[in-house]
Amino acid sequence: MIFLKNDYGLGAHPEVMRALMETNMELNDGYGEDRHCRAAAEQIRELIGCPDADVHFLCGGTQTNQTALAAFLLRPHWSVISADSGHICVHETGAIEATGHKINHVKTEDGKLTPELIEEVLVFHEDEHYVLPKAIYISQSTETGLIYSHSELKALRECCDKNGLLLYLDGARLAMALSCKDNDTKWEDLPLLADAFYIGGTKNGTLIGEALVIVNDALKPDMRFLIKQRGAMLAKGRVLGVQFEALMKDDLYLHMGSHANRMAQALAEGIAAKGYEFAIPPQTNLLFPMFEKELVQRLAEDVMFETYPIVTDTHQCIRLVTSWGTTEDEIEEFLKLI
Amino acid sequence: MIFLKNDYGLGAHPEVMRALMETNMELNDGYGEDRHCRAAAEQIRELIGCPDADVHFLCGGTQTNQTALAAFLLRPHWSVISADSGHICVHETGAIEATGHKINHVKTEDGKLTPELIEEVLVFHEDEHYVLPKAIYISQSTETGLIYSHSELKALRECCDKNGLLLYLDGARLAMALSCKDNDTKWEDLPLLADAFYIGGTKNGTLIGEALVIVNDALKPDMRFLIKQRGAMLAKGRVLGVQFEALMKDDLYLHMGSHANRMAQALAEGIAAKGYEFAIPPQTNLLFPMFEKELVQRLAEDVMFETYPIVTDTHQCIRLVTSWGTTEDEIEEFLKLI
Amino acid sequence: MIFLKNDYGLGAHPEVMRALMETNMELNDGYGEDRHCRAAAEQIRELIGCPDADVHFLCGGTQTNQTALAAFLLRPHWSVISADSGHICVHETGAIEATGHKINHVKTEDGKLTPELIEEVLVFHEDEHYVLPKAIYISQSTETGLIYSHSELKALRECCDKNGLLLYLDGARLAMALSCKDNDTKWEDLPLLADAFYIGGTKNGTLIGEALVIVNDALKPDMRFLIKQRGAMLAKGRVLGVQFEALMKDDLYLHMGSHANRMAQALAEGIAAKGYEFAIPPQTNLLFPMFEKELVQRLAEDVMFETYPIVTDTHQCIRLVTSWGTTEDEIEEFLKLI
Amino acid sequence: MIFLKNDYGLGAHPEVMRALMETNMELNDGYGEDRHCRAAAEQIRELIGCPDADVHFLCGGTQTNQTALAAFLLRPHWSVISADSGHICVHETGAIEATGHKINHVKTEDGKLTPELIEEVLVFHEDEHYVLPKAIYISQSTETGLIYSHSELKALRECCDKNGLLLYLDGARLAMALSCKDNDTKWEDLPLLADAFYIGGTKNGTLIGEALVIVNDALKPDMRFLIKQRGAMLAKGRVLGVQFEALMKDDLYLHMGSHANRMAQALAEGIAAKGYEFAIPPQTNLLFPMFEKELVQRLAEDVMFETYPIVTDTHQCIRLVTSWGTTEDEIEEFLKLI
Repeated sequence: MIFLKNDYGLGAHPEVMRALMETNMELNDGYGEDRHCRAAAEQIRELIGCPDADVHFLCGGTQTNQTALAAFLLRPHWSVISADSGHICVHETGAIEATGHKINHVKTEDGKLTPELIEEVLVFHEDEHYVLPKAIYISQSTETGLIYSHSELKALRECCDKNGLLLYLDGARLAMALSCKDNDTKWEDLPLLADAFYIGGTKNGTLIGEALVIVNDALKPDMRFLIKQRGAMLAKGRVLGVQFEALMKDDLYLHMGSHANRMAQALAEGIAAKGYEFAIPPQTNLLFPMFEKELVQRLAEDVMFETYPIVTDTHQCIRLVTSWGTTEDEIEEFLKLI
Repeated sequence: MIFLKNDYGLGAHPEVMRALMETNMELNDGYGEDRHCRAAAEQIRELIGCPDADVHFLCGGTQTNQTALAAFLLRPHWSVISADSGHICVHETGAIEATGHKINHVKTEDGKLTPELIEEVLVFHEDEHYVLPKAIYISQSTETGLIYSHSELKALRECCDKNGLLLYLDGARLAMALSCKDNDTKWEDLPLLADAFYIGGTKNGTLIGEALVIVNDALKPDMRFLIKQRGAMLAKGRVLGVQFEALMKDDLYLHMGSHANRMAQALAEGIAAKGYEFAIPPQTNLLFPMFEKELVQRLAEDVMFETYPIVTDTHQCIRLVTSWGTTEDEIEEFLKLI
Repeated sequence: MIFLKNDYGLGAHPEVMRALMETNMELNDGYGEDRHCRAAAEQIRELIGCPDADVHFLCGGTQTNQTALAAFLLRPHWSVISADSGHICVHETGAIEATGHKINHVKTEDGKLTPELIEEVLVFHEDEHYVLPKAIYISQSTETGLIYSHSELKALRECCDKNGLLLYLDGARLAMALSCKDNDTKWEDLPLLADAFYIGGTKNGTLIGEALVIVNDALKPDMRFLIKQRGAMLAKGRVLGVQFEALMKDDLYLHMGSHANRMAQALAEGIAAKGYEFAIPPQTNLLFPMFEKELVQRLAEDVMFETYPIVTDTHQCIRLVTSWGTTEDEIEEFLKLI
Repeated sequence: MIFLKNDYGLGAHPEVMRALMETNMELNDGYGEDRHCRAAAEQIRELIGCPDADVHFLCGGTQTNQTALAAFLLRPHWSVISADSGHICVHETGAIEATGHKINHVKTEDGKLTPELIEEVLVFHEDEHYVLPKAIYISQSTETGLIYSHSELKALRECCDKNGLLLYLDGARLAMALSCKDNDTKWEDLPLLADAFYIGGTKNGTLIGEALVIVNDALKPDMRFLIKQRGAMLAKGRVLGVQFEALMKDDLYLHMGSHANRMAQALAEGIAAKGYEFAIPPQTNLLFPMFEKELVQRLAEDVMFETYPIVTDTHQCIRLVTSWGTTEDEIEEFLKLI
């Protein structure tokens, strides 16, 4: 079977596993206070050029979003604005609402928020009979595989500043965003754009692990309490630190993202060459081609993938995902099937 | 000033105040266990022909919705489906989310849910990565002043039964719904349609007070714990019981609703006679006429009302509300102004 | 039957009812923004000598405690320290925990917190594996009918200041505390002692209603959102404003408290004269005499009261409560029975 | 330095790491639906002789407790009874309260609940003004290193059955409990005793991971929703399955626990031989010797350990912890120091 179902089907990148093996019999302090967490945090601060940032390591995306937003949404009536295709809106089983906060869902064209969309929400929420939007949630890249340009991000930042909103960036696929051929945002731009963001590991080469970066001083205090209260503080925190040390070394993180994107591009070009169209333009490692329904059925025999809820009378959209582990052979084989 | 701003601008109906005065120096048990709460509950059970219903008296609509839905939404991942114009969606400061539950907002034409709209939500929520819809929330009459017909309510009930959903009916303006000229739902239909509903007092003649009626046995246990935990159990619960006894006597409750509707109808006919149109067709005590913007400005000098967010280049929609206390003089005076 | 069961068995004081009747047919703005709420708030600000205080009117004690503490306990891991006999610990069905916050229960001799007891809690809570105490909760008078002296309150305030804690004072029976013969705390001391407190109406002459006074600027923003979100904002907020206007007029509030205390004192003296002892020394309107078990059984035929969980082989403690409505005749009759 | 600070200072047991390496480049389904999670669950069901049990794999203890108790505590006013030294009471930053539920803290002699202590709580919680206890929480072994005997566990079970309570067993150190020389509880007893329990991995040889076993059918539905909502469902769930497969093979799990206990016993005997006493009698891998204060200070130079809050004028209690990785050399060296 060709695996194009998601970007977490394999275990960890071999370099990550090697680091875990090498450090396994070390005795380390618990709860993220070990040398590896400290070293990885320092590597990240240097990478983003923000010596004052706080860096915390958590296990997965839903957990990181829930914990980080707990720091953003202090008062019970504060809400967060998100595209209605945002991961927190649909794929996290109401994790944000479970902590007592409303998400203001916004219908978008392509999964990307804009200042106009945000301000429409603000105008509507006029007094104490409504929740009070205090933050926006965006993903880079988005669930639709698209990236915000640097100027789009700056416009969102300005909109936030003007309206007293904080900006949270979900970087589950930050590797693919930053290594995308269309990208013009740099590591060191991130702390200027977001009040907090996370560097996703699970979808780019770790067994588990996301690095939450807190830039805004107001969000820093007591973050370890929030992490612990959500059961998100590993006794063996070193497991996360060791993996991120490996990711940060020799730019492995972006090399992996770049590989995933290259594989996707080859796949997209091959698909386009055969005359197929895409429901969403290909940009990073998620592709949304429209195939004849019978082809979709036939592909299911040899390829693992998911369908996507865009359908016409004759065609069905499917989602193809590449990762650091996708091989050129898999791409070639897939293209032979269509 | 002519008061057409809302249906809670006055105090209580004189009969309600008289009952409060007459019983004031009685010594009564606390926390809703007094003779008046018991008597009013019994009157309500007879009225709806449901001898097994539990009846609890609470203070206001948001509190009643929040408390009742706490019994519907047992597990943290259970959600409730509502029209996105529903009171719980917009006017309750995120009260439902504050208790940890997501509301599935549904865009509607006119503020009314339909089986088709409900089933679209259900299809989308396919597994444990999503919340699990377990209840629907409707208002009778709606925030748009419309009522569901009996057959529409039965269709919703059947949709709920088919899909394992419970049905909650917000009756803040139940008086106006049941006394509406177009209504074909009877008191005794309500327990067959809803698992729980409330009979609104605040918008129809009490100082405070809503009567929550629990029909479904599964929702009955421990309701007093939920009420107390939300600070919704008055030490002097008799204040609520006494008022509902007065409302239920000699059909006062529907007489008041009927008066509000008649005043609205007179107003609507007068407005239509002058050639104005309505953004939403007039049915109960909420009217949404479209007036020239300059007329709206002029009216504001003599009339208390609210604007409604439907605007054209030349016209602005306003909301006019009548109540048990609106007088024919007020209607006449208003019509002279347009 | 002689009624000594609680201080909320009657309706409202006649002056309060008169005010409600007189204003009933006024048209007023909703949600606490009416002239009566404004006037009553102003009266309270003058009374306590604190022109900048925010005053909000809510329905009952549990609701007020839950709403006020929501402003104190911003972050999910912040906790509040209370005597384990405190109303929030035992009689509110877990209302504080229901909003996500732990109460640090403290075992006390007599229901009163001390700096020593507070500091023991602080020492124990050393890092992020524990909740972080950020406020203390005290009642004046306590559930045991005792009052804190002014110097005891000042010591608590200093302890709070030293340790970065806020102080919340539950004044359900503030009338009885301030009018107690042993009291040396004045209205104008309260804003210097507490960051927020409430002036209880339900147990001292209103139908419903407590006046929440916010002194600390940090707690003021967005309080109306918190009130609305908990279903604690009445559409007819005027009902609360009108009642507090009446309470504040001609010192009616303290006259009522003083009456309750005088009745309790007469009762206590009569009981002591017959040779009975008290489990807790009598100070305000709650008495805890120890009676022979057979006497307790006999009293139950003519008197409404509650038992209290202090028992010896031969004696049972009972709780007797007087109020603004208790009469000298009732006291005399009771004393004849023992 | 001799490491006796905790049982999670090392990485994973070498067999566990080998299994992770061997399966690393396999492509697996996500979210715990892979072959390894299925196989490990099956091994556990066989081990405990309960073919119908549901088994879920989570990351750590706080997360597992919080998620499991969310299934136990359905209604917002339901509470859980725990010894006040229980992990959920003190070391989880209010994680249970953060989900809205009160813990009824019970003062115990030695960290162990008894039927008598439970029933005292039940008697006190008499009506809807109190929370409603619905479950008990115990740890096996406890935070004090003690184990419940089989007859003690049966007595707790009977107490629960009699009073409509569910029983949850925190098995963070279940390996040490079951392999303790004093233990008379067998794997197959556990499903008869507990409605749910977890088999702890973090403190016995995994990088991360606890296996939650749900026995009671009423607790099974929707557990995956609860896990996902708390951010506790790993995309690469295989990481947990693979580790538990390794633990369950050839009884490795109990061999590790047994080793930890043997090392502790050797340590305890050596300490006792030198004339020292224990604040809590040694039973499993946690020891609480009382040492002269100057000895404690001296030990700190060569040994990593924690102090325990039992102090006399001359002596200080310290906590010594052994694990699967503790060596005989370390024990010998430690004993030379005292």
